[in-house]
Amino acid sequence: MKIFYQWEPWAYSNIVSLKVAKKYWIDKKDIYWCFSFKDMFEEWIKNNSIMIVPIENSYAGSVHENFYHLSNYPVKIIWEYYLEINHCLVWLTKDVSKIKEAYSHYQALMQCENYLKNKNIEPKVYWDTAWSAKYIAETQDESKAAITSDLAAQIYNLEIIDKNINDQKWNTTRFFIVIPKKLELWNFSYNKKISILFKVKDMPSVLYKCLWAFATRNINLTKIESLPTKEWQFEYMFWLDFEKPNEKELNWALDELKYFSKQVNILWEY
Amino acid sequence: MKIFYQWEPWAYSNIVSLKVAKKYWIDKKDIYWCFSFKDMFEEWIKNNSIMIVPIENSYAGSVHENFYHLSNYPVKIIWEYYLEINHCLVWLTKDVSKIKEAYSHYQALMQCENYLKNKNIEPKVYWDTAWSAKYIAETQDESKAAITSDLAAQIYNLEIIDKNINDQKWNTTRFFIVIPKKLELWNFSYNKKISILFKVKDMPSVLYKCLWAFATRNINLTKIESLPTKEWQFEYMFWLDFEKPNEKELNWALDELKYFSKQVNILWEY
Repeated sequence: MKIFYQWEPWAYSNIVSLKVAKKYWIDKKDIYWCFSFKDMFEEWIKNNSIMIVPIENSYAGSVHENFYHLSNYPVKIIWEYYLEINHCLVWLTKDVSKIKEAYSHYQALMQCENYLKNKNIEPKVYWDTAWSAKYIAETQDESKAAITSDLAAQIYNLEIIDKNINDQKWNTTRFFIVIPKKLELWNFSYNKKISILFKVKDMPSVLYKCLWAFATRNINLTKIESLPTKEWQFEYMFWLDFEKPNEKELNWALDELKYFSKQVNILWEY
Repeated sequence: MKIFYQWEPWAYSNIVSLKVAKKYWIDKKDIYWCFSFKDMFEEWIKNNSIMIVPIENSYAGSVHENFYHLSNYPVKIIWEYYLEINHCLVWLTKDVSKIKEAYSHYQALMQCENYLKNKNIEPKVYWDTAWSAKYIAETQDESKAAITSDLAAQIYNLEIIDKNINDQKWNTTRFFIVIPKKLELWNFSYNKKISILFKVKDMPSVLYKCLWAFATRNINLTKIESLPTKEWQFEYMFWLDFEKPNEKELNWALDELKYFSKQVNILWEY
């Protein structure tokens, strides 16, 4: 059994992959990374592997690309995982006074904007949080620090100067842990949420009519996301997460929804 | 009067800036670019300038960052502009057989995926469509081509091998042309659309109730986008575009919406 996640070793998806490895008794050496999300779904689904799929960050918003992958490949969700994001300022030594610049991914820099302003450190955009740590370790330039995870600091032997420096202390990323549909694996979710994807018909007030199916049954929607259908310009479909009602209510709601939709994909229970 | 757009000279926002310059009789030398959208809003709003703000692409989806900027800065929309995106494969010479790799922005490569597959050309991710053209012009390596605009091909003196190579021929980007609120400038829009941003109250079926205000009046919604409020985790607000009804209907609808919302910002008519 292998685990795949996107991008660079020791990015934040890797922290999740370590947690998943522990939960499923998978050896650390069976964790692999891929360059892009597309690669991850395209290539590694064939290997009967577990995939780490970030869905949304509470500050930066949704990873829209992954909604398409999740609906285009035959996968299922076995775990919905929330990772608390703690950015650290890491550096070669502990003498803070010399730091002039902090390197990190654009999103991470945005999330630590006030912290950097207060410390008079200039933000510098870099590819990735983990790569920034690597870059700092390699340059050996004392005026440069990185914003990254504590795990990356460990890997590259850097000092953690400050922990949890993000302006929003509630910064959290929601992940789906995903496997091929045909695979059987223990589900660590509480099995109480459902995600669907639907394309509305072309009629007046159609979204309102679609939501009616849920509203009249007090089904609690936890997320709605509009996405381009990619079939025609400025035509949208909707991704909906909701708390699972009893079987009968669920079927009624979906039947009603179908009346106003061109297409409804019931994607996953988790 | 100056015009500002984000990123690199001769990217696709620049094509729009040229069109805006023509419309408002502004000299080409008064067009400037900024590194990030944030810089554009932060710095250049003080200059009483026109800003070119991409909002959504019909294939790649919304530029979420700009929804926040538009609501956080005192601006107004003077023109809603749709630019048809035509990616070109550009190169040093016309002998196509030697091309092995095509460089471009990740999104542009995705949009030309089938074309590249058919021609057996490997996609290579680069910063930006325009920078890719510059890179090709500089490397002088005949195995490398770029995917970019015809404008960039002209600038860097590259041959256009193929025009309109995107898989979706209807690929379009929607721009808002934006100025500071206090400025007066001719509005080229037809003044028939409105954008609002609202934060819903915490009550059952609240989005459904909000949409009710529009549905019962046959007000046509053209776009709904959910965005993190950035105030608390997994709390969303909604961006809504709709066709402008008469004044009375509009006021009634907004009054009703306010009943279910913590906050309603009526952003713009255009």
